[in-house]
Amino acid sequence: MKERDPVKAHKKICGKIGIYSRVRIGRKSELSLWYTPGVGKIASYLARHPRKAREYTIKRNAVCIISDGSATLGLGNTGPYGALPVMEGKAAIFKEFADVDAFPIVLDTQDAKEIVQTVKSIAPAFGGINLEDISAPRCFEIEKRLKSELDIPVFHDDQHGTAIVVLAGLLNALKIAKKNPEDASVTIVGSGAAGTAVTKLLNQAGIGKICVVDSHGMVSSDRKNLNPFKQELAKITGIRKSGSLEDAVRDADVVIGVSRGNALNTKHIRSMARDPIVFALSNPIPEIHPEKARKAGACIVATGRSDFPNQINNALVFPGVFRGALDSGVSEITDAMKLRAAYNLAGLIKKPGIGNIISSPLDPGVVKAVAKAIR
Amino acid sequence: MKERDPVKAHKKICGKIGIYSRVRIGRKSELSLWYTPGVGKIASYLARHPRKAREYTIKRNAVCIISDGSATLGLGNTGPYGALPVMEGKAAIFKEFADVDAFPIVLDTQDAKEIVQTVKSIAPAFGGINLEDISAPRCFEIEKRLKSELDIPVFHDDQHGTAIVVLAGLLNALKIAKKNPEDASVTIVGSGAAGTAVTKLLNQAGIGKICVVDSHGMVSSDRKNLNPFKQELAKITGIRKSGSLEDAVRDADVVIGVSRGNALNTKHIRSMARDPIVFALSNPIPEIHPEKARKAGACIVATGRSDFPNQINNALVFPGVFRGALDSGVSEITDAMKLRAAYNLAGLIKKPGIGNIISSPLDPGVVKAVAKAIR
Repeated sequence: MKERDPVKAHKKICGKIGIYSRVRIGRKSELSLWYTPGVGKIASYLARHPRKAREYTIKRNAVCIISDGSATLGLGNTGPYGALPVMEGKAAIFKEFADVDAFPIVLDTQDAKEIVQTVKSIAPAFGGINLEDISAPRCFEIEKRLKSELDIPVFHDDQHGTAIVVLAGLLNALKIAKKNPEDASVTIVGSGAAGTAVTKLLNQAGIGKICVVDSHGMVSSDRKNLNPFKQELAKITGIRKSGSLEDAVRDADVVIGVSRGNALNTKHIRSMARDPIVFALSNPIPEIHPEKARKAGACIVATGRSDFPNQINNALVFPGVFRGALDSGVSEITDAMKLRAAYNLAGLIKKPGIGNIISSPLDPGVVKAVAKAIR
Repeated sequence: MKERDPVKAHKKICGKIGIYSRVRIGRKSELSLWYTPGVGKIASYLARHPRKAREYTIKRNAVCIISDGSATLGLGNTGPYGALPVMEGKAAIFKEFADVDAFPIVLDTQDAKEIVQTVKSIAPAFGGINLEDISAPRCFEIEKRLKSELDIPVFHDDQHGTAIVVLAGLLNALKIAKKNPEDASVTIVGSGAAGTAVTKLLNQAGIGKICVVDSHGMVSSDRKNLNPFKQELAKITGIRKSGSLEDAVRDADVVIGVSRGNALNTKHIRSMARDPIVFALSNPIPEIHPEKARKAGACIVATGRSDFPNQINNALVFPGVFRGALDSGVSEITDAMKLRAAYNLAGLIKKPGIGNIISSPLDPGVVKAVAKAIR
């Protein structure tokens, strides 16, 4: 198939999702049934029994994808219009992979308080909230408040979707490289939404040694002026002495890039331990091009992109997480569910190989395996 | 066809609309094109050129249906969950009649300020805002502020959709009853969202004499404690002396009920002028049952319901208004457009008759006629 220019293709389709009517309205009797007067009975009933909305309305299967475009992909602050085509793509994936009715809402505000108020206000029609591409550290506060104030699952995909798929891929990569998770040293480049959540989940999964690096170097407890979120990271990793990116990468078994395009070079890879594992997950430009990393000695390389092997992408996670949440009616996605989802996802690969550490997002078994973890 | 129980039917379908993907995502190349990395190019482009969103995203054809459920149909304050099935019905009608992608957002707040902020925050993905079932007088302030602060059309359907379809039906009804619009006296029962907008549009169309009635009687300038919106109504109608509902209805050519079920009785109808016209538009229970009105001497009777003749329902208006607005890219629905829409809609009935004053919402010509007025 000829490769298509994304700009032209997007212009031609002009909107990757649409609404369809699940009922026929071709006769007066159908108009009476689904609109007035028929709908009046449901309206009165749900006014008295709001908790029954999941049995009579779109709430049963609807997810709201919320973004303010403050950290769209790895592109930075694109604002709501830059975020919209990405969120449409997610909505299309939600539908195609997991039959979830997801609608993208992009916000004309980047004020954390206004975002919380807005999401709370629009929540009733939805069975779940997928926060997306909201920059750190605002995203932590926004998610925390929404989780405590809403009775439907709130899931910041950049954090937890990434953490789940990274852990799944890492478990298989470590098997191939014959490294024990408990002994492995993992350096996480990037301390934003993804870096923070990856650190926490890897720690919960019992990974031996973790070090997080931000734009000022290693996130360590001896650094001054760390914000509370980074102080927490230093506490989790136990890193006490500051150092450079180079220091952090040297002799590491695994480097996980969740920062910006081209943040890593061949020198970094060459300084790692034997059979190094490199996840360069920034989108659309990875921290290091996979071929470059491999030439520098990387044993296993993964990116977030669909056009390289080993795609470590949230698309493997969010459809299943919400399919499971909607079907089981849970009100929260817990850490135990996230760990279970990562193990289920890793377990789909029966014989891990250098170019086969994780399933394809197109594999229909993926959604089921992840959904099964959410209950 | 057997009549179906709306409660059972709604439970079975559980959501009258859904999302569909307009693109296929069955191969890696398709994932690359519509998601990452392909979508990154559109995201960057729209970050720099936000006004181009209509050419590349769902904004081209998407409408947000907003309700806080404070005045759902004629049922009163049902809250967001009571409103949801009604808004889903509207979304289904939007799609089936006018191929508009409308999504229902029901609000967990009835605070006017919060509603304005919420709608402004979520506006970027949409090409138009349809406000619905928000109670008066809050709806006036909310609409006014949103119209002035957003660059997409904002249309409170309960006001303007009702006003347009009432004027259209009235023009044909007056023809049948051989009454001149300039000489006709019209009493509007109800001074909420619909009553206010109907009064204003009928006045603009040159209807002879208008009187509005609220729960305290005629809205007249000698009444104390009228809110500013009702003061404006008294000014428009020129009614200076207060009186009862009975006084207002006596000798009227036309009574338009936009209030609550059973607000009118046969005595009222009998006291009207010769060949009286009665629009009993409250949903789902009309101000007077159409058969009762006819037996009391009404020449022409209309309701808002799909199961009686002469359905004066917004469903005749909102699909076409937004179809026209999205296609022409207007940023506002002006009074001139509303008048034109009413005349276009009335003009579809070539030979008005007692049971045929307005087209069926199922007539495919309706959307075109209304859309043509919005440019």
